[in-house]
Amino acid sequence: MEKDIVVQKFGGSSVANPERMKVVADRVISYKNHRQDVVVVVSAMGDTTDELIELVGQITDDPPKREMDMLMSTGEQISIAVLAMAIRTQGHAAISLTGAQVGIRTDKAHTRARIQRIETRRIKKALAAGNIVIVAGFQGVTYDDEITTLGRGGSDLTAVALAKALGAKVCEIYTDVEGIYTTDPRIERSARKIKQITFDEMLEMAALGAQVMQPRSIEVARRYNIPLHVRSSFSKEEGTMIVKETEKMEEVVVRGVTCNKNEAKITICSVPDKPGVAAKIFTEISKSGVNVDTIVQNVSHTRQTDISFTVPRGMLNQAIKSTNAIAKKIGGGEVLHDKNIARISIVGAGMRSHHGIAAKMFQVLAENKVNIEMITTSEISVSCIINQSQADQAVKALHKKFALDKVA
Amino acid sequence: MEKDIVVQKFGGSSVANPERMKVVADRVISYKNHRQDVVVVVSAMGDTTDELIELVGQITDDPPKREMDMLMSTGEQISIAVLAMAIRTQGHAAISLTGAQVGIRTDKAHTRARIQRIETRRIKKALAAGNIVIVAGFQGVTYDDEITTLGRGGSDLTAVALAKALGAKVCEIYTDVEGIYTTDPRIERSARKIKQITFDEMLEMAALGAQVMQPRSIEVARRYNIPLHVRSSFSKEEGTMIVKETEKMEEVVVRGVTCNKNEAKITICSVPDKPGVAAKIFTEISKSGVNVDTIVQNVSHTRQTDISFTVPRGMLNQAIKSTNAIAKKIGGGEVLHDKNIARISIVGAGMRSHHGIAAKMFQVLAENKVNIEMITTSEISVSCIINQSQADQAVKALHKKFALDKVA
Repeated sequence: MEKDIVVQKFGGSSVANPERMKVVADRVISYKNHRQDVVVVVSAMGDTTDELIELVGQITDDPPKREMDMLMSTGEQISIAVLAMAIRTQGHAAISLTGAQVGIRTDKAHTRARIQRIETRRIKKALAAGNIVIVAGFQGVTYDDEITTLGRGGSDLTAVALAKALGAKVCEIYTDVEGIYTTDPRIERSARKIKQITFDEMLEMAALGAQVMQPRSIEVARRYNIPLHVRSSFSKEEGTMIVKETEKMEEVVVRGVTCNKNEAKITICSVPDKPGVAAKIFTEISKSGVNVDTIVQNVSHTRQTDISFTVPRGMLNQAIKSTNAIAKKIGGGEVLHDKNIARISIVGAGMRSHHGIAAKMFQVLAENKVNIEMITTSEISVSCIINQSQADQAVKALHKKFALDKVA
Repeated sequence: MEKDIVVQKFGGSSVANPERMKVVADRVISYKNHRQDVVVVVSAMGDTTDELIELVGQITDDPPKREMDMLMSTGEQISIAVLAMAIRTQGHAAISLTGAQVGIRTDKAHTRARIQRIETRRIKKALAAGNIVIVAGFQGVTYDDEITTLGRGGSDLTAVALAKALGAKVCEIYTDVEGIYTTDPRIERSARKIKQITFDEMLEMAALGAQVMQPRSIEVARRYNIPLHVRSSFSKEEGTMIVKETEKMEEVVVRGVTCNKNEAKITICSVPDKPGVAAKIFTEISKSGVNVDTIVQNVSHTRQTDISFTVPRGMLNQAIKSTNAIAKKIGGGEVLHDKNIARISIVGAGMRSHHGIAAKMFQVLAENKVNIEMITTSEISVSCIINQSQADQAVKALHKKFALDKVA
């Protein structure tokens, strides 16, 4: 009879040095001893990736992407070999496999490849022979045997895709935090670890500032309904389960409060209020490679209006430049910008069936004398752009008002 | 029409850091510009291999060989990617290929695999597209896609085997010395760089202490008659050509003097002089994993004899232990050892047709009051084991007597 398979992914900080490698080896073996088949996905050890990037910096400012993949994929290859050694030293059979050896087939988009197919023959054979199988995260191989990497959060993606391909019951994501929290514990000390959260909620929280997992792998897990267990590699505590639907009895409306301080706001004043103007503006800005997030245009009672939008802080200068150009072209007025903003959001699938949640949020902010500059909503979240100096205060007030400090 | 192909191998010290990588890139491009197709083989950058071995040391004393190959092969993979970047930054097309991507097929003997076949399709295609092709040295892949490494001197072997497979006119071995010298220039300052040397001579010199190349790759080059050009990566000077036969006009009898200070001598006194005893002794010692080199047993006029032999210095303790055991078993006497020895050798293919060379060597040593402890000869070399304190003096005297300081 086939055993249940569990896929466990350990990030770079979990395997940063030989000591931590040994801790991971212990943990993995303890799972294997519970009569489960274990497939482990690892990232590059600690600083390896940064060191390789620094090396490249001494050679060229514009490295060819194919060669970057050739180079960066060595980081995970080192990790899998070392972890296999650590496990075998403790007396358990283990075998490491590169992305190419597994047959993680991707498209040809170097440095941001997409997985197209995962072959399972070799992994299954190694599991059947009693091995713990250790797979290099983040990397794949094209049908022409070119080495590719999957881009940011690539190891999570490897783990989720393997869990799908192998029919694993769960995919565990080991990281340096205990799980997903109701809000950032560095801001609000009463933040609680969330026991269960839906894929949709997690996606919203990731998009709105929670940095535990990249949205891409959550999306894949949602698509194939692979439960994710986000937990700490430094403790045995259960972490957070990310699932399709949480248990009914919880009936939580707001699951968490997020805060994103990495955006900036741009406003074009006195834009002629006629059809097609917004399209022109945002087509132009998008062409310059800037990702625009929230856009707000007020109803105008004159023939002119103000248009505001947010961009990632790191793209602000680039965004101002192209906004100035387009403003001139369309006959708009002054272009203003503000780096001193924060996006505060509440997230909860329960909002679908509960009304008045947004109003309650606005009320809390008003009570705290927080001025709201922009508002956006999705089906399961409400976000307000506010002055950054009031961000922490707003998070604390919302966390309390929605009773997130209480065990659900 | 197909262009001539040259295979160039750069060792770890030649690519130790980004600056040197750029020098190598320049050099390789200059060859390519001379209308030759260039295939470059590189070793791991400088200290990479040592760093990886240190990492392993923190995990286990007994790393599984398969995982060592998985780990160590990353060193060359880093090198090829970085060199490809360095070349492309200077505006020339280049592509890096791992051993697996080339299709350097080996047997399954991890950490000391033997090349069984090299596929050339992918390299030829890349060359035809105008690329400088950069191949990871030292590594291969089994028919089951397991990563293997070729053992010491493995990158030289990769280069020679590629030269054979591609029908290259020459295989250039770039290193941190200018070529092969008539003797060690650190001992005798008048040592000259040898212009041409035969494979046989080079093999003798390597076996007797000259450390420029591993014998294994010279043997392969000899078997397939691939001329080797050993030269410096830091200068444009011609180095030493290793060829099947050197030009007749040279008519050199002694090509070089070598000196090996890394051996130790063991003597078993009073060994019963009867048939089968030597066989027993050396079978037993060989079983303990010690490589015995020179063996001397004098004609005995009594029923006892002394047997002396040399072993690598690093294996001395192990060798003494097993020698003591076997001495007791065969009823031999005391076991003596001496670390303070040196092997001085003269090498030259011309010895085949010239007589009296050994006698001349012994005479030179006698004139210098150097006592000879052991003697061995091959068809093209004579070696004497002497006291190490006289080694440098002996080298100088022999170098002068055989006129190696004079341009041939």
